[in-house]
Amino acid sequence: MPSEPKAALIVIGNEILSGRTQDANIQFLATSLGKLGIPLCEVRVIPDIEDEIVDAVNTLRSIHSYVFTTGGIGPTHDDITAAAVAKAFGVPLERHQPSVEKMKKFYSARLNEARLKMADLPKGAEPIETRATSAPGIQIENVFVLAGVPSIARAMFDSVAPSLTRGAPVLSRFVEAHLGEGDIADALTTIQNEHPHVDLGSYPFFRGKRIGLSVVAKGTDKSDIDTVIDKVAAAIRDLGHDPSVDVQLDN
Amino acid sequence: MPSEPKAALIVIGNEILSGRTQDANIQFLATSLGKLGIPLCEVRVIPDIEDEIVDAVNTLRSIHSYVFTTGGIGPTHDDITAAAVAKAFGVPLERHQPSVEKMKKFYSARLNEARLKMADLPKGAEPIETRATSAPGIQIENVFVLAGVPSIARAMFDSVAPSLTRGAPVLSRFVEAHLGEGDIADALTTIQNEHPHVDLGSYPFFRGKRIGLSVVAKGTDKSDIDTVIDKVAAAIRDLGHDPSVDVQLDN
Repeated sequence: MPSEPKAALIVIGNEILSGRTQDANIQFLATSLGKLGIPLCEVRVIPDIEDEIVDAVNTLRSIHSYVFTTGGIGPTHDDITAAAVAKAFGVPLERHQPSVEKMKKFYSARLNEARLKMADLPKGAEPIETRATSAPGIQIENVFVLAGVPSIARAMFDSVAPSLTRGAPVLSRFVEAHLGEGDIADALTTIQNEHPHVDLGSYPFFRGKRIGLSVVAKGTDKSDIDTVIDKVAAAIRDLGHDPSVDVQLDN
Repeated sequence: MPSEPKAALIVIGNEILSGRTQDANIQFLATSLGKLGIPLCEVRVIPDIEDEIVDAVNTLRSIHSYVFTTGGIGPTHDDITAAAVAKAFGVPLERHQPSVEKMKKFYSARLNEARLKMADLPKGAEPIETRATSAPGIQIENVFVLAGVPSIARAMFDSVAPSLTRGAPVLSRFVEAHLGEGDIADALTTIQNEHPHVDLGSYPFFRGKRIGLSVVAKGTDKSDIDTVIDKVAAAIRDLGHDPSVDVQLDN
Protein backbone atom coordinates (compact mmCIF):
# COMPACT_ATOMS: atom_id res chain seq x y z
CA MET A 1 0.00 0.00 0.00
CA PRO A 2 1.59 3.31 -1.02
CA SER A 3 1.98 6.02 1.64
CA GLU A 4 -0.15 8.52 -0.28
CA PRO A 5 -3.38 6.97 -1.57
CA LYS A 6 -3.73 6.38 -5.30
CA ALA A 7 -6.31 4.66 -7.44
CA ALA A 8 -6.77 2.70 -10.65
CA LEU A 9 -9.93 2.16 -12.69
CA ILE A 10 -10.86 -0.88 -14.78
CA VAL A 11 -13.61 -0.17 -17.30
CA ILE A 12 -15.13 -3.52 -18.26
CA GLY A 13 -16.92 -2.89 -21.47
CA ASN A 14 -17.05 -4.40 -24.92
CA GLU A 15 -19.31 -1.49 -25.87
CA ILE A 16 -16.53 1.04 -25.15
CA LEU A 17 -13.94 -1.01 -27.07
CA SER A 18 -16.26 -1.37 -30.08
CA GLY A 19 -16.80 2.39 -30.13
CA ARG A 20 -20.55 1.96 -29.78
CA THR A 21 -20.60 3.87 -26.49
CA GLN A 22 -18.61 6.89 -25.35
CA ASP A 23 -17.20 6.23 -21.89
CA ALA A 24 -18.83 8.43 -19.27
CA ASN A 25 -17.26 7.11 -16.07
CA ILE A 26 -13.54 7.88 -16.40
CA GLN A 27 -13.89 11.63 -16.08
CA PHE A 28 -16.36 11.41 -13.20
CA LEU A 29 -14.16 9.05 -11.17
CA ALA A 30 -10.99 11.00 -12.01
CA THR A 31 -12.54 14.23 -10.79
CA SER A 32 -14.25 12.73 -7.73
CA LEU A 33 -11.13 10.88 -6.60
CA GLY A 34 -8.99 13.97 -7.19
CA LYS A 35 -11.23 15.95 -4.84
CA LEU A 36 -10.47 13.40 -2.13
CA GLY A 37 -6.72 13.68 -2.70
CA ILE A 38 -6.63 10.22 -4.27
CA PRO A 39 -5.11 10.65 -7.74
CA LEU A 40 -6.34 8.31 -10.46
CA CYS A 41 -3.07 6.89 -11.78
CA GLU A 42 -4.16 4.39 -14.43
CA VAL A 43 -7.24 3.32 -16.35
CA ARG A 44 -7.61 0.08 -18.27
CA VAL A 45 -10.49 -0.59 -20.63
CA ILE A 46 -10.82 -4.34 -21.14
CA PRO A 47 -13.38 -6.70 -22.67
CA ASP A 48 -15.87 -8.97 -20.88
CA ILE A 49 -13.35 -11.84 -20.72
CA GLU A 50 -12.85 -13.50 -17.34
CA ASP A 51 -9.09 -14.03 -17.54
CA GLU A 52 -8.49 -10.43 -18.53
CA ILE A 53 -10.60 -9.13 -15.64
CA VAL A 54 -8.80 -11.43 -13.18
CA ASP A 55 -5.39 -10.31 -14.45
CA ALA A 56 -6.22 -6.61 -14.37
CA VAL A 57 -7.77 -6.78 -10.88
CA ASN A 58 -4.85 -8.72 -9.43
CA THR A 59 -2.18 -6.58 -11.09
CA LEU A 60 -3.71 -3.28 -10.10
CA ARG A 61 -4.90 -4.10 -6.57
CA SER A 62 -1.34 -4.96 -5.57
CA ILE A 63 0.08 -1.57 -6.59
CA HIS A 64 -2.76 0.89 -5.91
CA SER A 65 -4.53 1.82 -2.70
CA TYR A 66 -7.90 1.47 -4.40
CA VAL A 67 -9.14 -0.21 -7.56
CA PHE A 68 -12.53 0.63 -9.02
CA THR A 69 -14.26 -1.34 -11.74
CA THR A 70 -17.27 -0.26 -13.79
CA GLY A 71 -19.58 -2.49 -15.77
CA GLY A 72 -20.65 -6.10 -15.96
CA ILE A 73 -22.72 -6.48 -12.79
CA GLY A 74 -26.19 -6.81 -14.34
CA PRO A 75 -28.37 -9.90 -14.74
CA THR A 76 -27.40 -11.05 -18.24
CA HIS A 77 -24.98 -13.69 -19.52
CA ASP A 78 -22.32 -11.08 -20.37
CA ASP A 79 -22.27 -9.72 -16.79
CA ILE A 80 -19.31 -11.63 -15.38
CA THR A 81 -17.54 -9.06 -13.21
CA ALA A 82 -18.62 -10.44 -9.81
CA ALA A 83 -17.54 -13.97 -10.76
CA ALA A 84 -14.22 -12.71 -12.16
CA VAL A 85 -13.47 -10.65 -9.05
CA ALA A 86 -14.28 -13.67 -6.86
CA LYS A 87 -11.82 -15.69 -8.95
CA ALA A 88 -9.20 -12.95 -8.61
CA PHE A 89 -9.48 -13.24 -4.83
CA GLY A 90 -9.69 -17.05 -4.90
CA VAL A 91 -13.08 -17.13 -3.16
CA PRO A 92 -16.50 -18.49 -4.19
CA LEU A 93 -19.61 -16.41 -4.88
CA GLU A 94 -22.23 -16.47 -2.12
CA ARG A 95 -25.78 -15.20 -2.33
CA HIS A 96 -26.14 -12.17 -0.06
CA GLN A 97 -29.46 -12.59 1.76
CA PRO A 98 -30.04 -8.93 2.79
CA SER A 99 -29.69 -7.97 -0.89
CA VAL A 100 -32.10 -10.74 -1.84
CA GLU A 101 -34.66 -9.30 0.61
CA LYS A 102 -34.17 -5.81 -0.76
CA MET A 103 -34.59 -7.05 -4.32
CA LYS A 104 -37.73 -9.02 -3.38
CA LYS A 105 -39.35 -5.79 -2.21
CA PHE A 106 -38.30 -3.91 -5.33
CA TYR A 107 -38.96 -6.51 -8.03
CA SER A 108 -41.79 -8.44 -6.37
CA ALA A 109 -43.09 -11.03 -8.90
CA ARG A 110 -40.48 -9.87 -11.45
CA LEU A 111 -37.64 -11.23 -9.32
CA ASN A 112 -36.21 -14.19 -11.20
CA GLU A 113 -33.02 -16.24 -11.07
CA ALA A 114 -31.27 -13.95 -13.56
CA ARG A 115 -31.88 -10.94 -11.31
CA LEU A 116 -30.94 -12.90 -8.19
CA LYS A 117 -27.48 -13.34 -9.75
CA MET A 118 -26.98 -9.66 -8.86
CA ALA A 119 -27.09 -10.64 -5.17
CA ASP A 120 -24.16 -13.05 -5.57
CA LEU A 121 -21.09 -11.49 -3.94
CA PRO A 122 -17.57 -12.87 -3.59
CA LYS A 123 -17.23 -14.48 -0.14
CA GLY A 124 -16.01 -11.86 2.33
CA ALA A 125 -17.25 -8.94 0.21
CA GLU A 126 -19.54 -6.15 1.41
CA PRO A 127 -22.44 -4.83 -0.66
CA ILE A 128 -22.33 -1.21 -1.84
CA GLU A 129 -25.88 -0.07 -1.26
CA THR A 130 -27.56 2.92 -2.87
CA ARG A 131 -31.03 4.30 -3.41
CA ALA A 132 -30.49 4.01 -7.16
CA THR A 133 -30.93 0.24 -7.32
CA SER A 134 -31.84 -2.66 -5.08
CA ALA A 135 -28.96 -4.70 -6.53
CA PRO A 136 -25.71 -3.77 -4.79
CA GLY A 137 -22.21 -2.87 -5.93
CA ILE A 138 -19.42 -4.85 -4.30
CA GLN A 139 -16.48 -4.01 -2.07
CA ILE A 140 -13.86 -6.66 -1.39
CA GLU A 141 -10.70 -5.45 0.35
CA ASN A 142 -9.45 -2.50 -1.73
CA VAL A 143 -11.51 -3.32 -4.83
CA PHE A 144 -14.81 -1.54 -5.51
CA VAL A 145 -17.09 -3.00 -8.16
CA LEU A 146 -19.48 -0.39 -9.56
CA ALA A 147 -22.22 -0.52 -12.18
CA GLY A 148 -21.53 0.61 -15.74
CA VAL A 149 -24.61 2.82 -16.07
CA PRO A 150 -23.19 6.25 -15.16
CA SER A 151 -25.99 7.37 -12.81
CA ILE A 152 -25.70 4.15 -10.81
CA ALA A 153 -21.88 4.18 -10.86
CA ARG A 154 -22.03 7.67 -9.37
CA ALA A 155 -24.48 6.69 -6.65
CA MET A 156 -22.28 3.73 -5.73
CA PHE A 157 -19.14 5.88 -5.66
CA ASP A 158 -20.86 8.47 -3.47
CA SER A 159 -21.85 5.67 -1.12
CA VAL A 160 -18.26 4.49 -0.58
CA ALA A 161 -16.46 7.85 -0.82
CA PRO A 162 -16.73 8.67 2.92
CA SER A 163 -14.88 5.44 3.77
CA LEU A 164 -11.84 6.15 1.59
CA THR A 165 -8.57 7.32 3.14
CA ARG A 166 -7.92 10.78 1.76
CA GLY A 167 -4.60 12.22 0.66
CA ALA A 168 -3.44 15.79 0.51
CA PRO A 169 -5.90 17.60 -1.76
CA VAL A 170 -4.46 18.33 -5.18
CA LEU A 171 -4.88 22.00 -6.00
CA SER A 172 -4.73 23.31 -9.53
CA ARG A 173 -4.75 26.59 -11.38
CA PHE A 174 -4.37 27.26 -15.05
CA VAL A 175 -3.53 30.03 -17.50
CA GLU A 176 -4.66 30.18 -21.10
CA ALA A 177 -3.33 32.18 -24.00
CA HIS A 178 -3.63 32.25 -27.77
CA LEU A 179 -0.11 31.24 -28.63
CA GLY A 180 1.65 28.12 -29.83
CA GLU A 181 3.11 25.67 -27.35
CA GLY A 182 6.50 25.92 -29.02
CA ASP A 183 6.71 29.64 -28.32
CA ILE A 184 6.59 29.18 -24.59
CA ALA A 185 8.19 25.72 -24.27
CA ASP A 186 11.57 26.98 -23.07
CA ALA A 187 10.03 29.20 -20.41
CA LEU A 188 7.88 26.32 -19.17
CA THR A 189 10.91 24.05 -18.91
CA THR A 190 12.71 26.66 -16.80
CA ILE A 191 9.72 27.18 -14.52
CA GLN A 192 9.17 23.41 -14.14
CA ASN A 193 12.82 22.94 -13.18
CA GLU A 194 12.58 25.74 -10.61
CA HIS A 195 9.48 24.12 -9.05
CA PRO A 196 9.92 20.35 -9.17
CA HIS A 197 7.09 19.75 -6.68
CA VAL A 198 4.54 21.37 -8.97
CA ASP A 199 3.25 19.33 -11.91
CA LEU A 200 3.22 21.73 -14.86
CA GLY A 201 1.28 20.55 -17.91
CA SER A 202 0.74 22.21 -21.28
CA TYR A 203 -2.31 21.34 -23.38
CA PRO A 204 -2.91 22.82 -26.81
CA PHE A 205 -6.46 23.58 -27.92
CA PHE A 206 -8.25 24.60 -31.08
CA ARG A 207 -11.32 26.80 -30.55
CA GLY A 208 -12.92 27.51 -33.85
CA LYS A 209 -9.90 28.44 -35.94
CA ARG A 210 -7.81 29.86 -33.10
CA ILE A 211 -5.07 27.82 -31.53
CA GLY A 212 -4.02 28.29 -27.97
CA LEU A 213 -2.85 26.48 -24.93
CA SER A 214 -3.81 25.84 -21.35
CA VAL A 215 -0.95 25.64 -18.88
CA VAL A 216 -2.02 23.79 -15.75
CA ALA A 217 -0.13 23.81 -12.46
CA LYS A 218 -1.03 21.09 -9.96
CA GLY A 219 0.31 20.34 -6.53
CA THR A 220 -0.46 20.32 -2.85
CA ASP A 221 1.12 23.67 -1.88
CA LYS A 222 -1.02 26.67 -2.74
CA SER A 223 1.76 29.26 -2.62
CA ASP A 224 3.98 27.15 -4.92
CA ILE A 225 1.16 26.93 -7.43
CA ASP A 226 0.44 30.66 -7.21
CA THR A 227 4.12 31.44 -7.81
CA VAL A 228 4.27 29.10 -10.82
CA ILE A 229 1.11 30.55 -12.35
CA ASP A 230 2.45 34.09 -11.85
CA LYS A 231 5.66 33.11 -13.64
CA VAL A 232 3.78 31.50 -16.54
CA ALA A 233 1.55 34.56 -16.89
CA ALA A 234 4.66 36.78 -16.94
CA ALA A 235 6.24 34.58 -19.63
CA ILE A 236 3.07 34.89 -21.73
CA ARG A 237 3.16 38.70 -21.38
CA ASP A 238 6.87 38.70 -22.35
CA LEU A 239 5.83 37.03 -25.59
CA GLY A 240 3.36 39.84 -26.24
CA HIS A 241 0.20 37.86 -25.43
CA ASP A 242 -2.56 38.31 -22.87
CA PRO A 243 -2.81 35.59 -20.26
CA SER A 244 -6.23 34.80 -18.89
CA VAL A 245 -5.67 33.49 -15.42
CA ASP A 246 -8.37 31.45 -13.78
CA VAL A 247 -9.64 31.83 -10.28
CA GLN A 248 -8.26 29.39 -7.77
CA LEU A 249 -9.59 25.87 -8.33
CA ASP A 250 -9.49 23.79 -5.20
CA ASN A 251 -9.77 20.50 -7.02
CA MET B 1 1.54 -11.79 -34.01
CA PRO B 2 -2.06 -13.09 -33.81
CA SER B 3 -3.63 -14.60 -36.92
CA GLU B 4 -6.52 -12.11 -36.93
CA PRO B 5 -5.34 -8.54 -36.44
CA LYS B 6 -6.11 -6.82 -33.16
CA ALA B 7 -5.13 -3.53 -31.63
CA ALA B 8 -4.42 -1.80 -28.33
CA LEU B 9 -4.44 1.90 -27.51
CA ILE B 10 -2.32 3.75 -24.95
CA VAL B 11 -3.71 7.16 -24.02
CA ILE B 12 -0.84 9.17 -22.56
CA GLY B 13 -2.46 11.94 -20.66
CA ASN B 14 -2.29 13.41 -17.19
CA GLU B 15 -5.18 15.64 -18.25
CA ILE B 16 -7.46 12.62 -18.77
CA LEU B 17 -6.42 11.06 -15.44
CA SER B 18 -7.02 14.31 -13.57
CA GLY B 19 -10.51 14.56 -15.07
CA ARG B 20 -9.73 17.96 -16.56
CA THR B 21 -10.30 16.68 -20.11
CA GLN B 22 -12.84 14.19 -21.44
CA ASP B 23 -11.06 11.69 -23.69
CA ALA B 24 -12.07 12.11 -27.31
CA ASN B 25 -9.79 9.59 -29.03
CA ILE B 26 -10.86 6.19 -27.67
CA GLN B 27 -14.22 6.12 -29.43
CA PHE B 28 -12.81 7.40 -32.73
CA LEU B 29 -10.03 4.80 -32.82
CA ALA B 30 -12.35 2.01 -31.66
CA THR B 31 -14.81 2.78 -34.43
CA SER B 32 -12.21 3.38 -37.13
CA LEU B 33 -10.28 0.20 -36.34
CA GLY B 34 -13.51 -1.81 -36.16
CA LYS B 35 -14.36 -0.70 -39.69
CA LEU B 36 -11.04 -2.21 -40.82
CA GLY B 37 -11.78 -5.51 -39.08
CA ILE B 38 -9.12 -4.77 -36.46
CA PRO B 39 -10.87 -4.98 -33.08
CA LEU B 40 -9.60 -2.68 -30.36
CA CYS B 41 -8.98 -5.15 -27.52
CA GLU B 42 -7.53 -3.00 -24.74
CA VAL B 43 -7.03 0.63 -23.79
CA ARG B 44 -4.69 1.91 -21.12
CA VAL B 45 -4.73 5.49 -19.89
CA ILE B 46 -1.40 6.25 -18.22
CA PRO B 47 0.42 9.36 -16.98
CA ASP B 48 3.34 11.19 -18.60
CA ILE B 49 5.90 9.00 -16.79
CA GLU B 50 8.63 7.45 -18.93
CA ASP B 51 8.81 4.05 -17.22
CA GLU B 52 5.05 3.59 -17.44
CA ILE B 53 5.04 4.41 -21.16
CA VAL B 54 7.94 2.02 -21.80
CA ASP B 55 6.21 -0.78 -19.87
CA ALA B 56 2.85 -0.30 -21.57
CA VAL B 57 4.37 -0.11 -25.07
CA ASN B 58 6.52 -3.20 -24.58
CA THR B 59 3.74 -5.25 -22.96
CA LEU B 60 1.13 -4.41 -25.55
CA ARG B 61 3.26 -4.51 -28.71
CA SER B 62 4.18 -8.12 -27.99
CA ILE B 63 0.56 -9.32 -27.80
CA HIS B 64 -1.29 -7.11 -30.30
CA SER B 65 -0.88 -6.67 -34.04
CA TYR B 66 -0.95 -2.90 -33.66
CA VAL B 67 -0.44 -0.49 -30.79
CA PHE B 68 -1.52 3.13 -31.05
CA THR B 69 -0.56 5.86 -28.62
CA THR B 70 -2.11 9.31 -28.34
CA GLY B 71 -0.60 12.33 -26.65
CA GLY B 72 2.77 13.67 -25.60
CA ILE B 73 4.41 14.48 -28.93
CA GLY B 74 4.39 18.28 -28.73
CA PRO B 75 7.27 20.69 -28.04
CA THR B 76 7.00 21.13 -24.27
CA HIS B 77 8.83 19.53 -21.33
CA ASP B 78 5.92 17.18 -20.61
CA ASP B 79 5.95 15.73 -24.14
CA ILE B 80 8.03 12.61 -23.61
CA THR B 81 6.31 9.99 -25.77
CA ALA B 82 8.90 9.88 -28.59
CA ALA B 83 11.77 9.46 -26.10
CA ALA B 84 9.88 6.80 -24.16
CA VAL B 85 9.01 4.83 -27.31
CA ALA B 86 12.68 5.01 -28.40
CA LYS B 87 13.64 3.62 -24.99
CA ALA B 88 11.03 0.86 -25.32
CA PHE B 89 12.69 -0.22 -28.58
CA GLY B 90 16.22 0.29 -27.22
CA VAL B 91 17.15 2.83 -29.91
CA PRO B 92 18.27 6.47 -29.76
CA LEU B 93 16.30 9.46 -31.03
CA GLU B 94 17.51 10.91 -34.32
CA ARG B 95 16.50 14.21 -35.89
CA HIS B 96 14.55 13.50 -39.07
CA GLN B 97 15.80 15.97 -41.67
CA PRO B 98 12.82 15.88 -44.08
CA SER B 99 10.58 16.79 -41.15
CA VAL B 100 12.96 19.58 -40.18
CA GLU B 101 12.70 20.98 -43.74
CA LYS B 102 8.91 20.76 -43.64
CA MET B 103 8.81 22.52 -40.29
CA LYS B 104 11.20 25.26 -41.51
CA LYS B 105 8.72 26.12 -44.25
CA PHE B 106 5.77 26.12 -41.87
CA TYR B 107 7.26 27.89 -38.85
CA SER B 108 9.83 30.08 -40.59
CA ALA B 109 11.42 32.37 -37.95
CA ARG B 110 9.24 30.79 -35.23
CA LEU B 111 11.09 27.47 -35.57
CA ASN B 112 13.06 27.02 -32.37
CA GLU B 113 14.80 24.16 -30.58
CA ALA B 114 11.64 23.26 -28.64
CA ARG B 115 9.70 22.81 -31.88
CA LEU B 116 12.60 20.94 -33.52
CA LYS B 117 12.21 18.32 -30.78
CA MET B 118 9.08 17.26 -32.69
CA ALA B 119 11.35 16.12 -35.56
CA ASP B 120 13.23 13.70 -33.30
CA LEU B 121 12.17 10.14 -34.15
CA PRO B 122 13.34 6.84 -32.69
CA LYS B 123 16.07 5.41 -34.97
CA GLY B 124 14.43 3.20 -37.59
CA ALA B 125 11.03 4.89 -37.27
CA GLU B 126 9.03 6.39 -40.12
CA PRO B 127 7.24 9.73 -39.85
CA ILE B 128 3.44 9.79 -40.12
CA GLU B 129 2.83 12.81 -42.29
CA THR B 130 -0.42 14.75 -42.58
CA ARG B 131 -1.68 18.05 -43.86
CA ALA B 132 -2.79 18.91 -40.34
CA THR B 133 0.70 19.67 -39.01
CA SER B 134 4.27 19.92 -40.22
CA ALA B 135 5.44 17.89 -37.20
CA PRO B 136 4.99 14.18 -37.84
CA GLY B 137 3.49 11.27 -35.96
CA ILE B 138 5.73 8.23 -35.63
CA GLN B 139 5.58 4.63 -36.79
CA ILE B 140 8.11 2.15 -35.49
CA GLU B 141 7.41 -1.51 -36.28
CA ASN B 142 3.81 -2.13 -35.11
CA VAL B 143 3.59 0.96 -32.88
CA PHE B 144 1.90 4.14 -34.12
CA VAL B 145 2.47 7.32 -32.12
CA LEU B 146 -0.31 9.85 -32.73
CA ALA B 147 -0.94 13.36 -31.41
CA GLY B 148 -3.33 13.91 -28.52
CA VAL B 149 -5.30 16.75 -30.13
CA PRO B 150 -8.26 14.85 -31.64
CA SER B 151 -8.27 16.53 -35.07
CA ILE B 152 -4.56 15.76 -35.53
CA ALA B 153 -4.86 12.24 -34.12
CA ARG B 154 -7.57 11.58 -36.70
CA ALA B 155 -5.51 12.94 -39.57
CA MET B 156 -2.57 10.78 -38.51
CA PHE B 157 -4.75 7.68 -38.21
CA ASP B 158 -6.26 8.30 -41.65
CA SER B 159 -2.73 8.59 -43.01
CA VAL B 160 -1.68 5.14 -41.77
CA ALA B 161 -5.02 3.31 -42.13
CA PRO B 162 -4.40 2.16 -45.74
CA SER B 163 -1.21 0.35 -44.65
CA LEU B 164 -2.87 -1.75 -41.91
CA THR B 165 -3.63 -5.43 -42.50
CA ARG B 166 -7.38 -5.78 -42.32
CA GLY B 167 -9.34 -8.58 -40.71
CA ALA B 168 -12.80 -9.89 -41.41
CA PRO B 169 -15.14 -6.91 -40.99
CA VAL B 170 -17.15 -7.07 -37.80
CA LEU B 171 -20.85 -6.65 -38.55
CA SER B 172 -23.33 -5.60 -35.92
CA ARG B 173 -27.05 -5.15 -35.50
CA PHE B 174 -29.04 -4.23 -32.46
CA VAL B 175 -32.55 -4.34 -31.04
CA GLU B 176 -33.91 -1.99 -28.40
CA ALA B 177 -36.91 -2.32 -26.15
CA HIS B 178 -38.30 -0.68 -23.04
CA LEU B 179 -37.90 -3.59 -20.67
CA GLY B 180 -35.54 -4.55 -17.89
CA GLU B 181 -32.47 -6.64 -18.62
CA GLY B 182 -33.54 -9.21 -16.04
CA ASP B 183 -36.78 -9.92 -17.90
CA ILE B 184 -34.98 -11.13 -21.00
CA ALA B 185 -31.76 -12.47 -19.46
CA ASP B 186 -32.73 -16.15 -19.71
CA ALA B 187 -33.75 -15.83 -23.35
CA LEU B 188 -30.46 -14.07 -24.17
CA THR B 189 -28.46 -16.82 -22.48
CA THR B 190 -30.25 -19.44 -24.58
CA ILE B 191 -29.70 -17.52 -27.80
CA GLN B 192 -26.03 -16.88 -26.99
CA ASN B 193 -25.48 -20.57 -26.32
CA GLU B 194 -27.15 -21.48 -29.62
CA HIS B 195 -24.87 -19.06 -31.51
CA PRO B 196 -21.43 -19.13 -29.88
CA HIS B 197 -19.79 -17.35 -32.84
CA VAL B 198 -21.97 -14.28 -32.36
CA ASP B 199 -21.04 -11.87 -29.57
CA LEU B 200 -24.33 -10.96 -27.90
CA GLY B 201 -24.21 -7.97 -25.55
CA SER B 202 -26.91 -6.37 -23.44
CA TYR B 203 -26.66 -2.71 -22.43
CA PRO B 204 -29.23 -1.01 -20.22
CA PHE B 205 -30.10 2.64 -20.82
CA PHE B 206 -32.08 5.37 -19.11
CA ARG B 207 -33.72 7.87 -21.45
CA GLY B 208 -35.46 10.48 -19.43
CA LYS B 209 -37.28 8.36 -16.88
CA ARG B 210 -37.73 5.30 -19.10
CA ILE B 211 -35.45 2.35 -18.74
CA GLY B 212 -34.67 0.04 -21.60
CA LEU B 213 -31.95 -2.01 -23.13
CA SER B 214 -30.01 -2.38 -26.33
CA VAL B 215 -29.15 -5.91 -27.35
CA VAL B 216 -26.21 -5.91 -29.75
CA ALA B 217 -25.17 -8.85 -31.92
CA LYS B 218 -21.68 -8.72 -33.43
CA GLY B 219 -19.84 -11.14 -35.62
CA THR B 220 -18.44 -11.77 -39.06
CA ASP B 221 -21.31 -13.85 -40.52
CA LYS B 222 -24.28 -11.76 -41.64
CA SER B 223 -26.83 -14.57 -41.66
CA ASP B 224 -25.85 -15.63 -38.12
CA ILE B 225 -26.37 -12.09 -36.90
CA ASP B 226 -29.69 -11.79 -38.69
CA THR B 227 -30.88 -15.04 -37.11
CA VAL B 228 -29.81 -13.92 -33.65
CA ILE B 229 -31.49 -10.54 -33.98
CA ASP B 230 -34.71 -12.22 -35.20
CA LYS B 231 -34.65 -14.48 -32.15
CA VAL B 232 -34.05 -11.58 -29.76
CA ALA B 233 -36.89 -9.59 -31.35
CA ALA B 234 -39.18 -12.62 -30.99
CA ALA B 235 -38.22 -12.96 -27.31
CA ILE B 236 -39.04 -9.30 -26.77
CA ARG B 237 -42.47 -9.78 -28.40
CA ASP B 238 -43.07 -12.88 -26.23
CA LEU B 239 -42.61 -10.61 -23.21
CA GLY B 240 -45.30 -8.28 -24.57
CA HIS B 241 -42.94 -5.51 -25.68
CA ASP B 242 -42.25 -3.87 -29.03
CA PRO B 243 -38.77 -4.39 -30.39
CA SER B 244 -37.30 -1.64 -32.52
CA VAL B 245 -34.85 -3.33 -34.83
CA ASP B 246 -32.17 -1.26 -36.48
CA VAL B 247 -31.18 -1.39 -40.10
CA GLN B 248 -28.09 -3.42 -40.87
CA LEU B 249 -24.95 -1.72 -39.61
CA ASP B 250 -21.89 -2.80 -41.54
CA ASN B 251 -19.44 -1.64 -38.92
